[in-house]
Amino acid sequence: MTPVNHYSYKKLQDFCSSIFVHAGVEKEQADIVAASLVQADLRGVDSHGVVRTAIYLKRVENNMINPAAKIRTEKENESTALIDGANHFGAVVGTKALKLAMKKAKANGIAMVGVKHSNHFGTGAYYALEGVKEDLVTIVMSNASQTMPPTGGLRPFIGTNPLAVGIPCGEYQPFLLDMATSVVARGKIIVAAQKGKSIPPGWAIDKHGKATTNAEEALQGSVLPLAGPKGYGISMFIDILSGVLTGAGFGKYVHNMYENWEDPQNVGHFFITIDINKFIDIQTFKKRMDLYIQAIKSEPKAEDVEEILIPGEIETRISEQRKKNGITLPLKVEQELTEIGRKYGVPLEDALLRC
Amino acid sequence: MTPVNHYSYKKLQDFCSSIFVHAGVEKEQADIVAASLVQADLRGVDSHGVVRTAIYLKRVENNMINPAAKIRTEKENESTALIDGANHFGAVVGTKALKLAMKKAKANGIAMVGVKHSNHFGTGAYYALEGVKEDLVTIVMSNASQTMPPTGGLRPFIGTNPLAVGIPCGEYQPFLLDMATSVVARGKIIVAAQKGKSIPPGWAIDKHGKATTNAEEALQGSVLPLAGPKGYGISMFIDILSGVLTGAGFGKYVHNMYENWEDPQNVGHFFITIDINKFIDIQTFKKRMDLYIQAIKSEPKAEDVEEILIPGEIETRISEQRKKNGITLPLKVEQELTEIGRKYGVPLEDALLRC
Ligand SMILES: NC(=O)c1ccc[n+]([C@@H]2O[C@H](COP(=O)([O-])OP(=O)(O)OC[C@H]3O[C@@H](n4cnc5c(N)ncnc54)[C@H](O)[C@@H]3O)[C@@H](O)[C@H]2O)c1
Ligand SMILES: NC(=O)c1ccc[n+]([C@@H]2O[C@H](COP(=O)([O-])OP(=O)(O)OC[C@H]3O[C@@H](n4cnc5c(N)ncnc54)[C@H](O)[C@@H]3O)[C@@H](O)[C@H]2O)c1
Repeated sequence: MTPVNHYSYKKLQDFCSSIFVHAGVEKEQADIVAASLVQADLRGVDSHGVVRTAIYLKRVENNMINPAAKIRTEKENESTALIDGANHFGAVVGTKALKLAMKKAKANGIAMVGVKHSNHFGTGAYYALEGVKEDLVTIVMSNASQTMPPTGGLRPFIGTNPLAVGIPCGEYQPFLLDMATSVVARGKIIVAAQKGKSIPPGWAIDKHGKATTNAEEALQGSVLPLAGPKGYGISMFIDILSGVLTGAGFGKYVHNMYENWEDPQNVGHFFITIDINKFIDIQTFKKRMDLYIQAIKSEPKAEDVEEILIPGEIETRISEQRKKNGITLPLKVEQELTEIGRKYGVPLEDALLRC
Repeated sequence: MTPVNHYSYKKLQDFCSSIFVHAGVEKEQADIVAASLVQADLRGVDSHGVVRTAIYLKRVENNMINPAAKIRTEKENESTALIDGANHFGAVVGTKALKLAMKKAKANGIAMVGVKHSNHFGTGAYYALEGVKEDLVTIVMSNASQTMPPTGGLRPFIGTNPLAVGIPCGEYQPFLLDMATSVVARGKIIVAAQKGKSIPPGWAIDKHGKATTNAEEALQGSVLPLAGPKGYGISMFIDILSGVLTGAGFGKYVHNMYENWEDPQNVGHFFITIDINKFIDIQTFKKRMDLYIQAIKSEPKAEDVEEILIPGEIETRISEQRKKNGITLPLKVEQELTEIGRKYGVPLEDALLRC
């Protein structure tokens, strides 16, 4: 057995950024995309980490993402703006939109910036954490290509449209909720199928739209929105604000990044930022947050539960570990990145953690 | 068997309003509270309808709600405001806050008004529908007294904090999501217990914090947040913005309206309003909404499903029926209201629908 490689998150970020630069992306923008991917690996959200480097790159190479595009603010108001992403990287467009939303919230209390003509933007946490650094409540949403049926439907119509919320605390790490609107990630069904295990009721339907606990059948069918019609409604709401409102795609008009090689994705996002100071002194707020979290964490626990956790806590812990001990990659991802590195003359080995 | 009485929603509203007026509430404000209750009955959300008249009244009579209070705007900015409800009725404070948010959104694109020192405000839909009338995307949230444990916890810590979102359409009725953040209303567990039926896994825990499908045990324990940690996170987020941010209660500091006769409830709410025109021409938006809804409704349906529905559609249909055929009340509620009516010299019979 070959020993598992441990990568330095900083060097892995440099690696990814270099790859994108060699593919024609400006350094500053390549850095943003790389940072958003590596942060996901750090936080244990491996599905949204450097595993996506290959597909992002392939879309650039096939002119499905345009890294030379000029992102522009199409409409602007005191507290709102609409940005045309012009088919640039999701992370680049998203970062630009977030910055504008942060500036406007500081001036006017709350701001919303909507985005159209964008691409897959990674995890919502990436943006929420940037907003939190500036002491803003930061709400991030995006639509995504079709994976979930509406309640009562048979086939995918809405995406697992993510919702993220970041809120600063005092002594405690930030509250950071970052979630897909599906009951679980499809990855968990894949794992169950591989292990020949069944899945809990409510996770998925088979291809006839029938509820199933058979993981294989579920993979032929669809993962379901969380909590039935409630998750369906939340996911629709995100699609409406991200897509219908901004002028981006919605429903089937958000194109699948893996399958559609004719059209840009036309993803839409939006960012809502709230200046805490406009409601309550920020120091008082942080103290109240600490009090709140302390109270929750001191609640009596159910049997077999070691600790009551706050959203974001699991990911922060993984992040601290991985910063220290390095990031490991599945063999397939490692091979893919090694090849990409060879092609562009950037050796992946250089990203290894030296002990 | 006595025939079931059918009440005219308009007259039932007058009845409730008169009761509140007799208890010392100003006419205009009594009308708002009555309208919010009767609208819930119309829409089939009976749990939040005139059944609440008695408890609202009791809190007024016991000086736990102050209908003479002066609601005031404590902080104000371009796009935000903080309102001190001064312990007035939730519906009165909420309506005032919403109006301010609507005005500000029309000026600046998006607005948020937070509220502290308020009371139970009924359904979120009541406010969301008002915002929709003005062509605003309207997001409404409130915290509530403790009913759900945090993930891993044993006893109630957070409320079933409701989230409502209203969005105008063109030909179609508005998109109107209005939901508690619990997996289901506790009422559904009560019904199962009465019928001696079990409940699906994931709905509740028993008093030891153990998952249970036994409805009786569930009633001794707690109903769970929707979708596990995701619903816990959403409910916390609502508590933080409604309570921690505004200066209202949060967690155990939101007092139970039925059980606590020492303290005002100190509920917090917030209202976010978005002016669609600042992003896209409102007529274009409405056409896109119709297209979106039409597409969802034409999706192939799962077996035994008659129709794919849009959030709010069920309630609108019930509302149309009840406007025509009248509202029926459970015997217990009818008796209670009859008694209250006698006490204040307002006969409930006057609210009957004449055919
Ligand atoms: N860009 C896109 O198109 C897209 C689409 C869908 C999802 N995503 C991303 O996928 C990622 C994964 O989403 P997910 O829904 O699978 O995440 P998840 O289910 O692992 O976690 C959801 C949230 O619950 C919290 N959580 C989990 N267990 C907890 C516990 N016991 N106590 C308290 N909190 C707990 C987590 O901290 C997190 O905030 C997210 O980063 C999301 O942004 C992106
Ligand atoms: N003031 C408070 O403290 C408080 C607390 C909790 C809840 N509430 C209120 O309680 C009420 C009931 O909440 P609930 O969660 O039990 O509602 P619910 O579960 O009946 O409905 C939730 C949402 O799902 C939609 N829906 C249901 N079935 C659907 C389907 N098949 N297809 C599409 N959409 C569908 C409904 O239209 C609604 O928007 C709400 O009005 C809420 O505001 C108030």
